[in-house]
Amino acid sequence: MTSADTNASADGATPQPLTIAQLAERAGVSVATVSKVVNGRAEVAAETREVVEALIRRHGYRRQKKAAGPAPTLELVFHELAGPYPAEIIKGVQEVAREQTLAVSVAEPGRHTGRSGWVESVLARRPTGVIAVFAALTDAQVSQLHTRDIPLVLLDPIHDATQDCPVVSASNWSGGMSATRHLIDLGHRRIATITGPSHSLASRARLDGYRAALELSGHPVDDELIRTGDFYAETGLAHSRELLRLPDRPTAIVTCNDGTAFGVLRAAAEAGLRIPDDLSVVGFDDLFPSSWLTPALTTVRQPLAEMAATAATMAIDVAQGRPLAHKRVELATELVVRDSTAPPPAPGA
Amino acid sequence: MTSADTNASADGATPQPLTIAQLAERAGVSVATVSKVVNGRAEVAAETREVVEALIRRHGYRRQKKAAGPAPTLELVFHELAGPYPAEIIKGVQEVAREQTLAVSVAEPGRHTGRSGWVESVLARRPTGVIAVFAALTDAQVSQLHTRDIPLVLLDPIHDATQDCPVVSASNWSGGMSATRHLIDLGHRRIATITGPSHSLASRARLDGYRAALELSGHPVDDELIRTGDFYAETGLAHSRELLRLPDRPTAIVTCNDGTAFGVLRAAAEAGLRIPDDLSVVGFDDLFPSSWLTPALTTVRQPLAEMAATAATMAIDVAQGRPLAHKRVELATELVVRDSTAPPPAPGA
Repeated sequence: MTSADTNASADGATPQPLTIAQLAERAGVSVATVSKVVNGRAEVAAETREVVEALIRRHGYRRQKKAAGPAPTLELVFHELAGPYPAEIIKGVQEVAREQTLAVSVAEPGRHTGRSGWVESVLARRPTGVIAVFAALTDAQVSQLHTRDIPLVLLDPIHDATQDCPVVSASNWSGGMSATRHLIDLGHRRIATITGPSHSLASRARLDGYRAALELSGHPVDDELIRTGDFYAETGLAHSRELLRLPDRPTAIVTCNDGTAFGVLRAAAEAGLRIPDDLSVVGFDDLFPSSWLTPALTTVRQPLAEMAATAATMAIDVAQGRPLAHKRVELATELVVRDSTAPPPAPGA
Repeated sequence: MTSADTNASADGATPQPLTIAQLAERAGVSVATVSKVVNGRAEVAAETREVVEALIRRHGYRRQKKAAGPAPTLELVFHELAGPYPAEIIKGVQEVAREQTLAVSVAEPGRHTGRSGWVESVLARRPTGVIAVFAALTDAQVSQLHTRDIPLVLLDPIHDATQDCPVVSASNWSGGMSATRHLIDLGHRRIATITGPSHSLASRARLDGYRAALELSGHPVDDELIRTGDFYAETGLAHSRELLRLPDRPTAIVTCNDGTAFGVLRAAAEAGLRIPDDLSVVGFDDLFPSSWLTPALTTVRQPLAEMAATAATMAIDVAQGRPLAHKRVELATELVVRDSTAPPPAPGA
């Protein structure tokens, strides 16, 4: 360090960090340019940036006032932060947000703080948009966001959206139908299903797809084989134990998500049934590690990252005043056949 | 709606949304109170809030200027957004952030945008603090954050932290040792390990724990049984295929994470080996669905949510000028014995 580079005051006191004006003077560039470097803006030549950064490293930087406005943000609200589902959603939103230099903020309001606390914190943060993921918002909350001009998009909505918001979901009905039809095509007739919670729209659509596949193939729907679950493995286990103890037990079980399928697999192992020889199982979601199970899980893939990216694009479009081509978007699900499904065991086997 | 409630202008034109001042006048409260309701601040009586919200619902609200400063935020940077790991981390950070009314923002800089683009966007957002999760920051990036007084905490650091930052990790060495000792105690002598990438500190510590357990028990370390992986199931599968083809094959495999264990289980199934009768397997992390596998996975639990909460608290402490009690915190791992480990098969069996 040469003496010309030092920042000691004339009386030899401790060097002081430099203000933006002082940095500009030393670097021989404009105040605007230094401000851009300090605030991480892009439009500065790499060499200039390096000169300013080197000065800041050497002398320090003294901030003089707060930034002018809030950082533009997309706010993601989750019903629950658990398992691999949130990472897929955040990844999809981030890919869109990054192009628009938007931050992605994540919240799980939870039961403890109460939802009113959550919406007030959102109002305080003034995000560019809010994406509610499988989260139930009240009419009052939707109205609070709406009156502040904060766009709201529902992703995988939990309730019927009577509220006037854009909605992104997956083709759940088709997914439920393709899973069930696959089993019918393999020769199964006693096909059970373990659904999600009865208030979940997605679960309801999947169940209706299950019924449709049976009825369209001319097979009766046996209500004894329809069990209401909650997307958790524990409940999948409890229902499967009961189903597998029935005198005329099912030879296949369609579940509402991969998590529930883990409970079915456990119950089958307890009952000494082999997958897929004695019992076929189909999941829903195709999240890690479904393809890595032994046997690998047949499941219905839901394009979560793509759904999330679509929701992010819609929120940004609304925020920027662009009209939406479609207010309700349903992305296709796809049956992925692996090793957990096979023809049913021969009668009496 | 009574005529007194309408907001039509005198000439009968379309009603205009109300400003804060107009809302205050109609509600009979102060401008400050309306401002608090509009911006989601807490200290307003519920009845007053309801009166103002009702007016906003009826007439609309006209924003007059931008908010004064950026919303206080904790910024989480992930090496990769995939699997159940990110949800655990975000959950832990959010519990602390919520108490402090901080938003949680999530980024995965990725390979495409280049890391320099990421740090500049962070400088632009000016978060309260940054938590880097298993993410490698350059010295230049650390310096850029430091000179802007943005606290940085490393969580599960990927590299050796020569940088002067607070660090939170798990007791990886003890975890690796307890997994291996458990197998030794069961009678295993041919114990293989599949590590994480060689530059990962956590993986290195786990491998050293594996070596220590063998050496302290007086058993030789066979380098042929040590394979360098990358935390992915694919690589776990490739290494396990090779290990299980060795003339004197291992009777147990210790993996660096649960993901790698999925590859081991697949290779065992391919080779016709039963878990745990023919081969014992130990994971690391204890993330969903390890406890739900059949057989359930013996693994080393890493307290990810607790580690994340600790990192968040440290970042906030630094931001608020409080001294840290400890600059490096290592939270305890715990061996969770389930059904994928058992004594080795009898010789010649």
